[in-house]
Amino acid sequence: MKNYERIKGMIAATFTPIKENGDINYDEIKHYADYLANTPIKGVFVNGTTGEFTSLTINERKKLLEVWIKEAGGRFKVICHIGSNCQRDSAELAAHAQANGADAIGSIAPSFFKPATVQDLVDYFIPIASAASELPFYYYNMPSMTGVNLPVDKFLSLGHRYIPNLVGTKFTHNNLMEMGACINLDGGSFEVLHGYDEILISGIAMGSKGGVGSTYNYIPDIYDGIFQTMEANDIETARVLQMKSIRTVEVIIKYGGGVRGGKAIMNLIGIKCGQCRPPIARMSKDEYDALYEDVNTLGFINRR
Amino acid sequence: MKNYERIKGMIAATFTPIKENGDINYDEIKHYADYLANTPIKGVFVNGTTGEFTSLTINERKKLLEVWIKEAGGRFKVICHIGSNCQRDSAELAAHAQANGADAIGSIAPSFFKPATVQDLVDYFIPIASAASELPFYYYNMPSMTGVNLPVDKFLSLGHRYIPNLVGTKFTHNNLMEMGACINLDGGSFEVLHGYDEILISGIAMGSKGGVGSTYNYIPDIYDGIFQTMEANDIETARVLQMKSIRTVEVIIKYGGGVRGGKAIMNLIGIKCGQCRPPIARMSKDEYDALYEDVNTLGFINRR
Amino acid sequence: MKNYERIKGMIAATFTPIKENGDINYDEIKHYADYLANTPIKGVFVNGTTGEFTSLTINERKKLLEVWIKEAGGRFKVICHIGSNCQRDSAELAAHAQANGADAIGSIAPSFFKPATVQDLVDYFIPIASAASELPFYYYNMPSMTGVNLPVDKFLSLGHRYIPNLVGTKFTHNNLMEMGACINLDGGSFEVLHGYDEILISGIAMGSKGGVGSTYNYIPDIYDGIFQTMEANDIETARVLQMKSIRTVEVIIKYGGGVRGGKAIMNLIGIKCGQCRPPIARMSKDEYDALYEDVNTLGFINRR
Amino acid sequence: MKNYERIKGMIAATFTPIKENGDINYDEIKHYADYLANTPIKGVFVNGTTGEFTSLTINERKKLLEVWIKEAGGRFKVICHIGSNCQRDSAELAAHAQANGADAIGSIAPSFFKPATVQDLVDYFIPIASAASELPFYYYNMPSMTGVNLPVDKFLSLGHRYIPNLVGTKFTHNNLMEMGACINLDGGSFEVLHGYDEILISGIAMGSKGGVGSTYNYIPDIYDGIFQTMEANDIETARVLQMKSIRTVEVIIKYGGGVRGGKAIMNLIGIKCGQCRPPIARMSKDEYDALYEDVNTLGFINRR
Repeated sequence: MKNYERIKGMIAATFTPIKENGDINYDEIKHYADYLANTPIKGVFVNGTTGEFTSLTINERKKLLEVWIKEAGGRFKVICHIGSNCQRDSAELAAHAQANGADAIGSIAPSFFKPATVQDLVDYFIPIASAASELPFYYYNMPSMTGVNLPVDKFLSLGHRYIPNLVGTKFTHNNLMEMGACINLDGGSFEVLHGYDEILISGIAMGSKGGVGSTYNYIPDIYDGIFQTMEANDIETARVLQMKSIRTVEVIIKYGGGVRGGKAIMNLIGIKCGQCRPPIARMSKDEYDALYEDVNTLGFINRR
Repeated sequence: MKNYERIKGMIAATFTPIKENGDINYDEIKHYADYLANTPIKGVFVNGTTGEFTSLTINERKKLLEVWIKEAGGRFKVICHIGSNCQRDSAELAAHAQANGADAIGSIAPSFFKPATVQDLVDYFIPIASAASELPFYYYNMPSMTGVNLPVDKFLSLGHRYIPNLVGTKFTHNNLMEMGACINLDGGSFEVLHGYDEILISGIAMGSKGGVGSTYNYIPDIYDGIFQTMEANDIETARVLQMKSIRTVEVIIKYGGGVRGGKAIMNLIGIKCGQCRPPIARMSKDEYDALYEDVNTLGFINRR
Repeated sequence: MKNYERIKGMIAATFTPIKENGDINYDEIKHYADYLANTPIKGVFVNGTTGEFTSLTINERKKLLEVWIKEAGGRFKVICHIGSNCQRDSAELAAHAQANGADAIGSIAPSFFKPATVQDLVDYFIPIASAASELPFYYYNMPSMTGVNLPVDKFLSLGHRYIPNLVGTKFTHNNLMEMGACINLDGGSFEVLHGYDEILISGIAMGSKGGVGSTYNYIPDIYDGIFQTMEANDIETARVLQMKSIRTVEVIIKYGGGVRGGKAIMNLIGIKCGQCRPPIARMSKDEYDALYEDVNTLGFINRR
Repeated sequence: MKNYERIKGMIAATFTPIKENGDINYDEIKHYADYLANTPIKGVFVNGTTGEFTSLTINERKKLLEVWIKEAGGRFKVICHIGSNCQRDSAELAAHAQANGADAIGSIAPSFFKPATVQDLVDYFIPIASAASELPFYYYNMPSMTGVNLPVDKFLSLGHRYIPNLVGTKFTHNNLMEMGACINLDGGSFEVLHGYDEILISGIAMGSKGGVGSTYNYIPDIYDGIFQTMEANDIETARVLQMKSIRTVEVIIKYGGGVRGGKAIMNLIGIKCGQCRPPIARMSKDEYDALYEDVNTLGFINRR
């Protein structure tokens, strides 16, 4: 694996812009990338849950990554999610990511057939990670979506023996005890990226130094403030900012969650992300109007 | 949609033969098809859960279907499962199935992003089913794997208005009350294929006329007996046969379930299905030996 | 244990009549018992889930049993549910049931602290069952309410070695495969009482001879018909009756389930069961009116 | 309601000492209370989950409270958990707690019949809380045990209008976003006691000022250190202490969780708590020996 530096601060999980006819709007990514480059965000996580990876074809995922790498233009890191239920597809995506200059890869657990043990999960990932052996590999833990709730600290310990480029985990789970165990594993050998924006302060208190989030896209200054003030041991200020994050997440939950509600907010702030692909339901004009009001009430999201 | 006749009796959900190097063993399908053609089985359900569809690439799924259609040679029906989490992939598979002469298609619900309402599920399927508008379309209901537990009777009622080729459901769920409601819907307008082999007698009692099963592959005479005796109102004999089915399913559960345990039994009876693909764990020599003993104890599975 | 005969046919799970002030209306039980005595129902299951046992004090449960035994007057069997989360309370209730002339006892699994293994469940029941050692003891299996989903066939096998009066199970679960395994255990040594009214036909097909149900209370003739016609191998007629049961259960689900919706129907047919106790919400006048309409539409429940 | 001060710091959830014959060992409570009085612990939570409340009779719960109040002797607060599935039992326990001088009461949600809405939960608690109208009332939120996962912030908002003595919640749930919403509700009007010891640092970061925990009993200095250092904005030191808590909780999980494993540790540190009551399985000599080793390895629990 090539030399790599640990992630500190914010990685934005990108939304996938969709046109009215359902095709991907690759052209909007330049605009999206320019926007992100002017925030404190350090990198993007492409083709993840926020990017509706399961609703994309393999070819679409490849092209999306290529466009993101081009438009990032070195201004921020590009991490590529290459997870799927099909090991061969994932290995192909991993090789493509490495060949095209991604900075790192990550993979969620397969979730239709579920690995029964930590060893099964390690075995599943071996050929995938080795297809991009020069890139750092992150295990993307998200039991709420996958139903795979294997202990991540055990996975890291075992996995490291078989997967040389395993460097850490994107930890998207409420189990902060397990997160703490991962952070403290082997004297802090593994990176643990916090994945639940609405409790970032709690993850940083537990020891996390970086995070991957979808709401970072539209309120980056608030999360940057949380990282900065916690670094400065100013818990009280961080808490006030965290409360703004919670209010924001309450709004997106009201509109169907981080992908559906979040994508709608992206449209409001001027990034043309369009609708979600099915099975996530379209958002009607009435819903948009109500969301607009709720965002106004929050008062701290900058509409365009 | 072309004229079609209802399914009565057994449809075998096919296993996907895998070579030691992990590639698909397409050559074995001729042997497998010849075997099935000599049983009372009426058709196959290709690329379903038993066939590990989520572990296959789109191109592999296409080729598998083509080989099955060729090797069936009209001796039995070929129904193709075209479900996935990606609507565009599924529409492509549906069109391919129709173009290549499949007798019908079926689709499971998307399970990473889950449809929130019956309408969402209908909307998801519309372009998929219309991509094979000449073929009967079955909704494959399997909440234990998908986590999608929308009422199937409501789905059929609503779906029929938007999906002209929707003819019924492969109902793989313990909720026999809902199954009964589906069977009685609109005076019996929809086909309801029973999907849990181990309780087939209960599904037939409720009114089901056909079934799709994986254990049909290796004990077809037992299930044929259940269908025949129940048709003849001989519940007691059917019950004795059902108990053999239950004993068989207890064995496959012991070895990891219908796909992993069932595939191993296929090897025992002489169809070279090989191992499962990850994340389903390989079966060791020791496990095979133990399974061999258990199958011997059952006494009614014909090893080759 | 005293000599006992197996249960064939219907055992009605009784509702607990409640006055407007929340007290138990013991006086109504005479009327209720007289009503049941004029149906084909063979016995009652007192203080079960339908009877809201967890909402009753220990003293109320004792008195309810005493009144039921008195009012039954030998016209039908009285089985007493003595389950609770507290082993000592349950043992006290078991001893009371035996001392007061109940015909049998049954117990659900403790559900706050859950037994982790079959052995734990057996150990929990030993002192309870032995406190009524002259009475047949039934394990009341209801995973949907308790979250305890231990294999009942394993429980019966192991339990029989420690609990001499263990005679069977009230099986209220969709897992008909496990139910079949219980029925066939040791050549049919154990009684397996079917517990899901809406799929009775499926349970009888699997081999069950008797059932415990709450909807038996208000449509006894329909269930009696199912038992009779299945006994006579007339599946088709049984199926038509089962469909009426399913339509009825759809209605009670609409009104909050078997306890809340069922209790309201009891009021409609003239047994003054009143409201449920909290936390089950009161039923408003509007809801009653709507239920009245739905029951009218069904057309086969005899309102008084 | 009488004037009351908010809880800051640690409330220990007490274990219930049990003799070899299964009876409660009331005599040990004097020793237990003297031990706690010499720690920084501010109060006890009697008859909670740790105290195995569902395994105790109503009379035992009353006597336990009386003994605790006597032995506390004003040296620390005594909060009484009066929750149960039976509203009338809980109201009786609440009245008893008030009459006998408890400092506050708390109640878990009923969990067999589950309240379907926030209003149902409020309605359930009204007569219970009013039976101890002079005492502060805390809602004990623990979805992992109850399966009741109603939004606590909504409960507090609505509940306050019907339950004048509702002052806050014992929040035992991983959903720290909801916890944050509760803390910030109405400008901080409600007390939110942290309930998951292993992530205390995360709860304090979110704004919690006090906690109720079972592991406080045996490593009080560690938790006191977390409270003190977080108050002093020294996150790094708090994190080192939190890791000791996590290591401890990993041990108790290995031995069956906080009640079973924790009770065994109490015995090791010299408080004779004995075994748990069924259905929690007895701990064997071998398990005790292994636990003794694990506690030795931790190195910071003071055995006696």
